[in-house]
Parts: sequence; C-alpha cells; structure tokens
Amino acid sequence: MLKRHPANPLLTPRDVKPSRGGYVVRGVFNPGAALFNDTIILLARVAEGCEPKAGYISVPYYKFNAGQGTAEILEKPQNDPDLQLKDSRGVVYKSTDYLSTISHVRLAQSRDGIHFKMPDKPFLFPCDASECYGIEDARVSMIDGKYYITYTAVSGDGWAAALALTEDFKTVHRKGIIFPPLTKNVVLFPEKIHKKYYALARPHNIGFGRPSIWISESPDLLHWGNHKCLLRPRNISFEKEKIGPGPPPIKTDRGWLVIYHAKGQDQAYSLFLALLDLNNPTHVLKRSKTPVLYPKLPYEQRGFVPNVVFSNGLVVKPDGGIMLYYGCCDDGIALVQTNIPELLSILKQEA
Amino acid sequence: MLKRHPANPLLTPRDVKPSRGGYVVRGVFNPGAALFNDTIILLARVAEGCEPKAGYISVPYYKFNAGQGTAEILEKPQNDPDLQLKDSRGVVYKSTDYLSTISHVRLAQSRDGIHFKMPDKPFLFPCDASECYGIEDARVSMIDGKYYITYTAVSGDGWAAALALTEDFKTVHRKGIIFPPLTKNVVLFPEKIHKKYYALARPHNIGFGRPSIWISESPDLLHWGNHKCLLRPRNISFEKEKIGPGPPPIKTDRGWLVIYHAKGQDQAYSLFLALLDLNNPTHVLKRSKTPVLYPKLPYEQRGFVPNVVFSNGLVVKPDGGIMLYYGCCDDGIALVQTNIPELLSILKQEA
Repeated sequence: MLKRHPANPLLTPRDVKPSRGGYVVRGVFNPGAALFNDTIILLARVAEGCEPKAGYISVPYYKFNAGQGTAEILEKPQNDPDLQLKDSRGVVYKSTDYLSTISHVRLAQSRDGIHFKMPDKPFLFPCDASECYGIEDARVSMIDGKYYITYTAVSGDGWAAALALTEDFKTVHRKGIIFPPLTKNVVLFPEKIHKKYYALARPHNIGFGRPSIWISESPDLLHWGNHKCLLRPRNISFEKEKIGPGPPPIKTDRGWLVIYHAKGQDQAYSLFLALLDLNNPTHVLKRSKTPVLYPKLPYEQRGFVPNVVFSNGLVVKPDGGIMLYYGCCDDGIALVQTNIPELLSILKQEA
Repeated sequence: MLKRHPANPLLTPRDVKPSRGGYVVRGVFNPGAALFNDTIILLARVAEGCEPKAGYISVPYYKFNAGQGTAEILEKPQNDPDLQLKDSRGVVYKSTDYLSTISHVRLAQSRDGIHFKMPDKPFLFPCDASECYGIEDARVSMIDGKYYITYTAVSGDGWAAALALTEDFKTVHRKGIIFPPLTKNVVLFPEKIHKKYYALARPHNIGFGRPSIWISESPDLLHWGNHKCLLRPRNISFEKEKIGPGPPPIKTDRGWLVIYHAKGQDQAYSLFLALLDLNNPTHVLKRSKTPVLYPKLPYEQRGFVPNVVFSNGLVVKPDGGIMLYYGCCDDGIALVQTNIPELLSILKQEA
C-alpha cells in the first residue's frame, strides 16, 4: 500500500468557488496533472449542481453559442406538469433530459504540489452540443513539449473521448472526438514508440465480457486504429466489475509503468499496477496482485460516491519522485508521494 | 416503397453447405456486395449452429492456431453439472461462454445478380481471439480499384469493427480493428472527399440517447478520428429504437445517397434514405419520412428474427441501375432493383 500525504485531502468542494451564482460545487476530483516550468498544475473535474430552493426543482444546463458555453439554471415549480423526476441523475422537462450535476475542468496550481491555488474561472468549459452534459476526467500527457489533454465529453449521444492541446495552459485548442462513444479514460503515452503514438482506453462493453483496458495506435494523435484488448479484469474480487486506465504511463528502465483503476465486487474503486514492454506496449510483462491503494481513510470512504480512489493524474519530478493525485469519492483530491523504484519493487514482489 | 424482385428470396439456408460435418446453417443473410469485373459478388453472413442430438447440448466454437481458425463442436450430456443453460444465445461450460450460432462470411457470385453460386469454403473465417464469436455483416467499398471490407468482429471483449482488404476476392489481408467496441455497421465512402476518407458507424450508446449514425474521418483508412453524431433516431415509430448505416453511400449529382436501417417501436427493421452534402458529408441535406422498405412479405416477416429487412450491400451498375441486396429475418437474402433517379425522387417528394 502506498503512503497517503498527511495534508490529505488537498482540495475539497469548500475550496472551489462555483462558476456562477445559484450553482453549488458538489465535487472537485479526478485531476489530470502536469509539471509546467516549476509549477505543478492540476486540471480538476468540478461537478456543480444548483442551490436548493423550497418548492422548486433547479438543475444546471449549458447554452451554446458560437463555440462558447454559458452556465444556466432551469428552475420549475415542483408540481409543474411538464416536469418528470427521473432518478438521482436528473429530471426530464418537456422531453429534454437535465442532470443534477454537470462537470467542467478547473485549473489549480502549486509550487510544492500540496498547497493549490484555483482561479474562479473554468479552464475547460463545454463549448458545443457534444459536451452539453459536461467535461470529465482530464488527463494530461506532455509530448514533444506540448500538453495534450484527453477528456470525456458527455452529451445526449453518450460519452466519448475528446482531445485538446495547450502549450501554455492559457490558450486551449480543441481537436474533436478521437474515440467514439462509449469510450472513457483515454490516456496518451508520453512519446512515440517505433514511430507510432499509443493510447490506453476503456471502451464500454456489455453483454459478453467486462470493461477492460484497450491499447490503440495513431500516426498523428488525431486518428486512432489497431485497437486491441490489453488487460481484462481478473477473477479477483477487487477487479470483479471492471478495470480502466489511470494516469499517463511512466517510462522506466524495466518497461512502461501503468497505474490503473479497478472496480470490485464491493463496488469499491482501487488502484493497481502493470508493466508493459518498453518496445512493444501491447505486451504485458507484469501485473500487481493486490491494490496499491484501496479506500481506507474517511475521505476515501465517505462522499458523493462512497469508497472510491481514482487516479488520472501524476507528476514525475526530475529526481524520479512521483506525485500521484487521486480523486476521493467524486468529492475531493488527495495525494500519495512515491517513486519509480518503489512501484517497480511492488511489481517485482507481487508479479 | 421499392419493388421486390419476383425471384426473392434469392438465397436461403437450404442453398448453403455447412462449413463442417455436424454444423447446420441457420441463416445466410446481410450480404456485402461488389461488382468485380463482370461478376456480382455477395459476401454473405452465414450463421451456423450444431445438429441437434437427443440428450446432448452441442454448440459450435472456434479454435485458433497461428492465425487460422478451425470450426469445432462442444458436445456435453444435458445433465453435465459443469453445463449452465443461459438464454437463447448459448450456454456456459466451465465458466466459458458458448453461443448457439456463430457467423462467418461466405462469397457468392453471379452474372445476372439473381442466380448465385456459393462455394462450400468460407471466404472470411475468424482467425484470432478478437473474432472468436464470429464475423458478421461485411460491407464492401471499392476505393481506387481495391476492395475494402469492413465487418463486425465479435468476441468475449464485445463487438468491434475490423477492416480487411482484397484486390481479387481470393487473397484477403486483415488490417485489424479500426473502431473499438461497441461499434457496428461501419461503412466506408467509396472515395476521398477533400483529401480525407470518411466512414459511417453505429456506436452503441446507452443511458442517454439512442444508437445513432456517426461520421468519422481518416487519413489512411486504418486510423479514424473527428467522430461526430450525424443522424439520430427521430420521434417516429419506425425509428423509435435505433438507426444505423447500411450499404456504402452512393455518389450522385445531388449529394451522397445513404440507405440506413431503423428499428421501430414494433421491433421491425426497415430501410430509410438520407442525402449528405457532396463536399461536406457531415452536413445532412434530406431524409425520407417513411421507410423505402418495410417487412411485408412472408420471407421478410417470418424467420430467425421476425420482421427484419436489413441492407449492407448494393451494386451500382454502369447504367445507374442499383441492385440493393438485403437480409430477411437473419435468415435469407433478397433483392430490390432500383436506380438513382428513383431514390432521389423519393427523397425530393418526402423531404
């Protein structure tokens, strides 16, 4: 088991100002992470709902105009005949779906990686109909000096993986949907391997099989193919429901070090390790037998979704130290500090 | 409504020899089609099960060795304690799934497009674990003199869209999975549009929305991106459940003519028309209001899956005549003969 930082949780909804009046921050979680100059940057998912108002149903929604999204509120009397309560996720008003919370991505920055400042302004905000139910779980991969951000775009057409690009964490260029629905958790390898880019993803399969980790190739980061199933959930209780990619793979002498999430029989999300061949990442060398992180502390066990540790962001420091950030219960953000030798030695003992 | 050919159905399971002893052909349906020299070629889906044997459960399965699949039979006494009957789709034996039928692709050829000869040997047979539950619904697009075949590869990891290439309908080169699970019904446009290849697909969305037709771009036919939702099911009873792409789009003066399938409130599959901008196929110009083909005749209403007309193959003859082949009830193959002016005039009247 990895060691939690004593300052955990580093960020909670109380630290985040809503993106507009009438909104309430329900969670700040699942951050992508990057080292930019001497600053550690988190791209955190911020989920917002509406302030409750007695006798009314209020839900957030986004309105789009010329590539810009604005946050709005639908407020209707509880007994409005056009209003149908659905489940905890939202309501239907005049046959349009509304959700109880919608996410966008907020940038937080820190010198020490522990104390973060977060501007009030969203960093990545839904900008068209393909993102009308929000933007979730950004992952940042630094490739050739540029920062590529993969995130989940959610809409009435399902959820899909989109790509954006920034060089300065100020201007962002959107590159469209790179994996069709229903794909989540797309993460890019930080460099080309034999002239090809690689990504890990978690397509949503149903019927046969359980959601697994796939690997895909690209000539240009925009177009993807040669999709292959790489890692499947094993018949162990921790991985019973599904597994999916975590933060960008880390290049080590021994291979590509992969941190992935698993959802178990008890519905808890935990973190596991795998090692892929350096020259051929479609070849799995090792896989840990037990979680390296499992929800144990109060902030990992209690929150919007109980018993969740979920990581999609880490920073490898020049000295080989790893700051591994993780979302807790779709609620807050926490940190474990580790390093490459420690993770490799866990894999060596366990595999 | 389009006019059926009086010789329908052109092919039924009785016309097809099983791929091995002990197998029974349950359906020959959903053919891709191509004009190759002066021959009309169908790449038909052949679904096979096992000959029933009293007191036993027999199911087909494929064994793989060095890129070759061989057809096998699992035969167990009905009361075998390791055997669990699942649903109509199959059984579980020692925690491995088996299906009641598995599909491969068989080539049929004809001079007149009506009378077909079908060799006993499969044309495309599952060759690795990603196809272990079969190969379904091939579509053929002729691009720059080569024939590109997209098909559904089914395995324990879900179903995905794979690509294969042939120049002579003898040697086939497999190009891997081009759309991750759960994607079906991928069909390629027959030429580049402004230096990009295009495809239509039906990703499987669930939760929000209903399965729709998406459009994607590629520089090389192997890697795909910029996925966009193009056509969604409308609130009409014929399209209530889902819609998906049919045969390759046809280039006309007025735009790309698209034939698509729709599953309605009554669970029937029917065929509709749409017209896309010639220069920008992400732009929909027209869409028919009623089906151009709806299950009406006995061979379209009764069979393995009742009330299905489903098309993934057509041939445009040099004189502009269209041979539109379609699967009936996952059982047989039928034909309508039409032409570009007739389809455009339906769209003009209806849109």
